[in-house]
Amino acid sequence: MIIVLKNDQATAAIEELKQHFGSQQEIFVHNNRVAIQNADPSDLTPAEQAAAQEIITDVPAAVQASRLFHPEDTIIKTPHSTIGGKNFTLMAGPCSVESAEHILKMAQVVKNAGATVLRGGAFKPRTSPYSFQGLGKEGLIALRNAADRLELDVVTEVMDVEQVPLVEAYTDIFQIGARNMQNFSLLKAVGKTRKPVMLKRGMSATVADVLNATEYIAAGGNHQIMIVERGIRTFDNKYTRNTFDVGVIPVLQKLTHYPVIADPSHAAGHTEFVTPLALAGVAAGANGLIVEIHDDPAHAFSDGAQALKPNEFNEMVVKTNAVRQALQSIE
Amino acid sequence: MIIVLKNDQATAAIEELKQHFGSQQEIFVHNNRVAIQNADPSDLTPAEQAAAQEIITDVPAAVQASRLFHPEDTIIKTPHSTIGGKNFTLMAGPCSVESAEHILKMAQVVKNAGATVLRGGAFKPRTSPYSFQGLGKEGLIALRNAADRLELDVVTEVMDVEQVPLVEAYTDIFQIGARNMQNFSLLKAVGKTRKPVMLKRGMSATVADVLNATEYIAAGGNHQIMIVERGIRTFDNKYTRNTFDVGVIPVLQKLTHYPVIADPSHAAGHTEFVTPLALAGVAAGANGLIVEIHDDPAHAFSDGAQALKPNEFNEMVVKTNAVRQALQSIE
Amino acid sequence: MIIVLKNDQATAAIEELKQHFGSQQEIFVHNNRVAIQNADPSDLTPAEQAAAQEIITDVPAAVQASRLFHPEDTIIKTPHSTIGGKNFTLMAGPCSVESAEHILKMAQVVKNAGATVLRGGAFKPRTSPYSFQGLGKEGLIALRNAADRLELDVVTEVMDVEQVPLVEAYTDIFQIGARNMQNFSLLKAVGKTRKPVMLKRGMSATVADVLNATEYIAAGGNHQIMIVERGIRTFDNKYTRNTFDVGVIPVLQKLTHYPVIADPSHAAGHTEFVTPLALAGVAAGANGLIVEIHDDPAHAFSDGAQALKPNEFNEMVVKTNAVRQALQSIE
Amino acid sequence: MIIVLKNDQATAAIEELKQHFGSQQEIFVHNNRVAIQNADPSDLTPAEQAAAQEIITDVPAAVQASRLFHPEDTIIKTPHSTIGGKNFTLMAGPCSVESAEHILKMAQVVKNAGATVLRGGAFKPRTSPYSFQGLGKEGLIALRNAADRLELDVVTEVMDVEQVPLVEAYTDIFQIGARNMQNFSLLKAVGKTRKPVMLKRGMSATVADVLNATEYIAAGGNHQIMIVERGIRTFDNKYTRNTFDVGVIPVLQKLTHYPVIADPSHAAGHTEFVTPLALAGVAAGANGLIVEIHDDPAHAFSDGAQALKPNEFNEMVVKTNAVRQALQSIE
Repeated sequence: MIIVLKNDQATAAIEELKQHFGSQQEIFVHNNRVAIQNADPSDLTPAEQAAAQEIITDVPAAVQASRLFHPEDTIIKTPHSTIGGKNFTLMAGPCSVESAEHILKMAQVVKNAGATVLRGGAFKPRTSPYSFQGLGKEGLIALRNAADRLELDVVTEVMDVEQVPLVEAYTDIFQIGARNMQNFSLLKAVGKTRKPVMLKRGMSATVADVLNATEYIAAGGNHQIMIVERGIRTFDNKYTRNTFDVGVIPVLQKLTHYPVIADPSHAAGHTEFVTPLALAGVAAGANGLIVEIHDDPAHAFSDGAQALKPNEFNEMVVKTNAVRQALQSIE
Repeated sequence: MIIVLKNDQATAAIEELKQHFGSQQEIFVHNNRVAIQNADPSDLTPAEQAAAQEIITDVPAAVQASRLFHPEDTIIKTPHSTIGGKNFTLMAGPCSVESAEHILKMAQVVKNAGATVLRGGAFKPRTSPYSFQGLGKEGLIALRNAADRLELDVVTEVMDVEQVPLVEAYTDIFQIGARNMQNFSLLKAVGKTRKPVMLKRGMSATVADVLNATEYIAAGGNHQIMIVERGIRTFDNKYTRNTFDVGVIPVLQKLTHYPVIADPSHAAGHTEFVTPLALAGVAAGANGLIVEIHDDPAHAFSDGAQALKPNEFNEMVVKTNAVRQALQSIE
Repeated sequence: MIIVLKNDQATAAIEELKQHFGSQQEIFVHNNRVAIQNADPSDLTPAEQAAAQEIITDVPAAVQASRLFHPEDTIIKTPHSTIGGKNFTLMAGPCSVESAEHILKMAQVVKNAGATVLRGGAFKPRTSPYSFQGLGKEGLIALRNAADRLELDVVTEVMDVEQVPLVEAYTDIFQIGARNMQNFSLLKAVGKTRKPVMLKRGMSATVADVLNATEYIAAGGNHQIMIVERGIRTFDNKYTRNTFDVGVIPVLQKLTHYPVIADPSHAAGHTEFVTPLALAGVAAGANGLIVEIHDDPAHAFSDGAQALKPNEFNEMVVKTNAVRQALQSIE
Repeated sequence: MIIVLKNDQATAAIEELKQHFGSQQEIFVHNNRVAIQNADPSDLTPAEQAAAQEIITDVPAAVQASRLFHPEDTIIKTPHSTIGGKNFTLMAGPCSVESAEHILKMAQVVKNAGATVLRGGAFKPRTSPYSFQGLGKEGLIALRNAADRLELDVVTEVMDVEQVPLVEAYTDIFQIGARNMQNFSLLKAVGKTRKPVMLKRGMSATVADVLNATEYIAAGGNHQIMIVERGIRTFDNKYTRNTFDVGVIPVLQKLTHYPVIADPSHAAGHTEFVTPLALAGVAAGANGLIVEIHDDPAHAFSDGAQALKPNEFNEMVVKTNAVRQALQSIE
């Protein structure tokens, strides 16, 4: 249940509830709201009940992710970005970090287009073990240097618990890949850090699955979480790699306070469909975009087919900006 | 195969090809392009080959739907609308025609918002036989009268071959519902008329399935076809009724010349998500929207949960127009 | 609601309930059970309530299909078969009727293997309009003659309302194809006949969808209904044409009294997987099998890739019989 | 490519090929077959070509998993079981290890039914972080002791790289859960051990995805791999938790030499459907079953709804044995 406390009694009541329930149940506090797992109103003392302005009993398992517990938007601040709420965050970069020179060149494209976050994979979760697996630490260093040179934030994937300290040393935002969305050990590990986490939705993850996955991170005390829609698996992937579930953007934004980012690149799988999907995501209200770019897609180390060339990326940004401004001017 | 004829030899070569192949194979002509089913270049005479500027052998089964056969956009003209190409067509109305008074009231809302097509079901394909099945002919009459009073076109569903003449007498555009997308007898029947057909994608129809379904209509000589994306069935329908496959809009527009209309209402299933999906569809380049409205959704005869109220619809139109204009101003 | 009447008061109470509700609500009677749509216990008079042994209010929309209304198995009798309950019915034949000679040859194979129903399509719902569409009436005649010569029943597909009288004249069982599962006009039309109907599950039809589709048939007074599981559409159809949902067999048998037939041919799509799927279906408790066979699959007019050759079919029958007998010997 | 060497030249040719390609390309040898990644016949010297009896160029990415590379069945030997080929392996136990007493009691049921592998989770991948997460090391000890007392093998889940040494110390077979099927770091870690690995198919994993996941294990040198079909996610999970993809069993057995085990419990999700799915899996040719049991399902720590009670489990075993014997008697 979630107990919404009367404002003038909140401080004292929170202490009392912690004392009463804290040793047995999980208890979470946000402003004047207290969520207690596995308890119901009949467990409250008369004094506790009297301090409540409202008691909500129909509560999802992922209670910390819910707007019932945390009504206002989560805003995440990184050195160069403010993510969530009315802000719009553009993230871009190559699929893989390929070399120090290349990532710097791409970072310049990213910066020029007005983006504030540089993406790039140093550890790559490839379907086949014989595909390029990423440059590892060397890639992290190159990525960090390029971002620092151009005053950009870094987002990069962490693939297992052991990599967490290494990646943490170089990134501003941890990325958890779609295939690891329910790697609960990894979620717990990044939940213990205090770096923001960008969680990609799994290929067949329901809305409840995604929110429960964020809860593994939040349960460790890390509340700086973003969710990425990157396309789901359906019965037809002949023309697009995945099916971009644009509807999940407003659905998630209704249910949770975490920012929702659209990834049109992995959904489209082919360059020609990236911009329409980016536009759809922005029009549906996404809090940001993460887009793959490459100056020579035919020779990209990975996912070249879906990488926008710099000029295509610039055109995409012009269009998505136009859509955002058109919608802002109405509100 | 598709034979692209040299322009100065096209007329004569078309006649020759018809004579050569017409009695055995299906043969279709569009300007200087001739599609012949079940034939390949080795079947051509030297003279026929000499008349060809290009011969395309990797041809989809739905050849008439393909841009390989018909490169330019199909433009459909109805009394009050021009559909396809750079045009944008707004269609709206209640799920069911409920009475002459009600449909007229809704038509006024539709007209005021700038839409040119009035939708409304007289024959309703309901999941259960015990649900309201529509007013039938009485509904058609009311729909036609309301549209005529306000100078709107009519689109309404036809459910079986026997209904075709009746519906044809009252509508400007036949609607084929998602559940009938592969009702091939019905597709053949509307293919023999010369009224435009709006074909809704089936719940689990692949892109190839949709295009093959249009081909059943085109095979009868009716080339005024629109395709509607109305959401597909995936593993999560708890928050939206279907998954709006926004990516299929640019995919279809690449492959086929027929206009592609977005139906955010059946995808969303809930009012609050209709506008974000409409915006996504428009941003992705849809040639039009078809939207359900109702002044009293709680008492609608069908699908009230997804009907926009008139003021909500007006807001949606303002927003979608803003997005369209923003994108047009860039091109 | 469903009212289970006390046996000694059933006859009188049924009359009273019909009088009370019959002019306004749909009312269905099965032995001492009366289902009334859109009514609840508070609508009953004290006398009506007194006649009830039990009143069930949590009732599915497809009430006539439900075991709550009709607890015992439906048994369907055709001239040469008894379908449902503890009976097992084997149906086989070519995808299409190709000629009088060929269907007779195939009928002999069917008969020799112990099957009692001959399948064969005279009207073929093909994805493309340019594929073979069936021999039509000529095919029906050939199919009927072959079956009569060998004392077999006929099952064949009817594709639209207009074909119903023609097909009815030649078949013992109407087949409704997967693509027409929600062609409600067609379901109503066969519901008005008194010939058994074999309804194939649509590619993405939920259990509720299937049962509601049967209800359209039952609403017309035709209660001789079979349901066929023939595979559903999922994210991987590279190796099998569809995903055989073997679990739906016991699920349907729990919820409904209609026989459930397994179609391993359309699920497998490739000969080598037909027998394993047939065995799975039988082991899971299917009331019968419908299997495609052909003596020369490479030259079959349709679906040759999934047709068992006569010797393969015979082996399949030996194996499925062995499994059935093994399971029967335990009960 | 895969080079099938002439038997009398195999030893020498293998050495030559290793020398030629081993420093640059990944090269795998199985008997007289040599797989070389990213190479084609034109890269071979005339002598190498002369030593080849056949060169296969259409090779899947997961080459070591393929029967093209390893035609004969993989047979896995654990202390009490022989898994794969014509052998049938029964595995059973509770979802979670709940206490030393309880797991011993369940082990006795497992043993009495003729099973040779005891399952039980000590680390539980639960959707919600607030659900029971397993007893951890204490659970492993209890599981090992129970198995040893009754001369059974142990299979238990390992959830992350760090847990590998601990779990390895107590188990005979590592289980990788469906949610971790593409946790590539974990796959690599168990690939470096020499304990058998039982890999559960992910909820929306294609056949190629599953085989590529096994390849991550095989690439580390561990070839003792089993694949488990445990149901996939489709559009209807109202009556069963997942859709049991029985067809994937013969498909996998055709493509790969690894044993394929059926898990009817997670597919069914409800006790009443476990036995029909187990029978379906066995009839389709599964190399074994893994089944969840509990003596008091209503109070199970996890997944009680799908646990068979001991008597239900015994009945299931009688039936599945009957089906296996019936099919064996025919071959």
